[in-house]
Amino acid sequence: MFPAATVAGIQAADADNRQAVDEACELNANCLVLVVGGLPGALAGQALHKNIAHARDQVLEGIEKLLFYAKSCHMPLAIEPLHPMYAADRACINTLEQALDVCDQLDPGQSGALGVAVDVYHVWWDPKLQQQIERAGQSRLLAFHVCDWLTPTRDLLNDRGMMGDGVIDIPKIRSWVEAQGFQGFSEVEIFSTENWWQKDHSEVLDTCIARHRSVV
Amino acid sequence: MFPAATVAGIQAADADNRQAVDEACELNANCLVLVVGGLPGALAGQALHKNIAHARDQVLEGIEKLLFYAKSCHMPLAIEPLHPMYAADRACINTLEQALDVCDQLDPGQSGALGVAVDVYHVWWDPKLQQQIERAGQSRLLAFHVCDWLTPTRDLLNDRGMMGDGVIDIPKIRSWVEAQGFQGFSEVEIFSTENWWQKDHSEVLDTCIARHRSVV
Repeated sequence: MFPAATVAGIQAADADNRQAVDEACELNANCLVLVVGGLPGALAGQALHKNIAHARDQVLEGIEKLLFYAKSCHMPLAIEPLHPMYAADRACINTLEQALDVCDQLDPGQSGALGVAVDVYHVWWDPKLQQQIERAGQSRLLAFHVCDWLTPTRDLLNDRGMMGDGVIDIPKIRSWVEAQGFQGFSEVEIFSTENWWQKDHSEVLDTCIARHRSVV
Repeated sequence: MFPAATVAGIQAADADNRQAVDEACELNANCLVLVVGGLPGALAGQALHKNIAHARDQVLEGIEKLLFYAKSCHMPLAIEPLHPMYAADRACINTLEQALDVCDQLDPGQSGALGVAVDVYHVWWDPKLQQQIERAGQSRLLAFHVCDWLTPTRDLLNDRGMMGDGVIDIPKIRSWVEAQGFQGFSEVEIFSTENWWQKDHSEVLDTCIARHRSVV
């Protein structure tokens, strides 16, 4: 869902979002994960305005429109709250509580058509994480992503760690998610330009599998 | 307040904290701002454990002990929630709501002895910011710090922006704080190794003053 500031921009974003739903259907995906965008223009370094509340209102409207279409295609939408360090340029939904507030507003009946994606990298720090995972419950827990938070983290985007190499208690968070009845995959997502993306693919895959067994 | 994992470490931290209160008294400061620390060892890149809930419990105990001493010296303590990107290594109190929960627990009578420091850099992204500033009220708003969030941000610690160069709507946040009756300073705090720290001091000060007038 890319930033939209003009009517034409919003229409283009809506069309792009519907196409993503279509593609998810073709792929027979379990859900479409939404990274909702931040302040218009901020990703290019030139924010068009500083009103994050307005950006959030626009995101809500965008999801509402898309949900109508996605329901007709029977494709669930999963809002992925991103870490607050991405609030400006990538996604202005930044906590699980905020994502679930959107779910409550747009799908109060918990139809299963709208839920959340829990990525440990984005939410591990949240003092309300367990509470909000319990609030989400099985019907709204649609995806679970894993990697790790390194200390120090040298880049805001591309310095994620392999599971086990950082400070996130992944088994604890996984236990909270599974206690709600989540039975999906643990999807590994390691943006790591300087380290893991430099290694041989088979080594990376072998490490992912080994670490999934030992520390996830 | 440095990380403490052992009894000796906790005692040393407590003594260090009391000394900071003494120094604040000598300086006739309005309050002592607390950056509460994260997971023990994480700042040095070697976290001793991954239990952030336990770290938070230890921080609560540390503040409780310090508050007893600080009250006897009539020095208010201001908990500064740091941005969630510092949860591992610098401070495990990461939202204003969480800081105010600690205030409610340790100083339910709102005596003025315990409050918060609001730094726009750490809290600007928070969808509950206005609500929590109103919750804090005059008695708990003890300090207000300004700088700006740059897009892109190239370093987690030392790439803060001069007010006006980023995406934070500083006047709006300031208006929320002052609507509660806060009458203190706007303290400028710009960690910027590559940019502002390379410039001539008088240019930096002149820019701070000009920007404070135009965009704060």
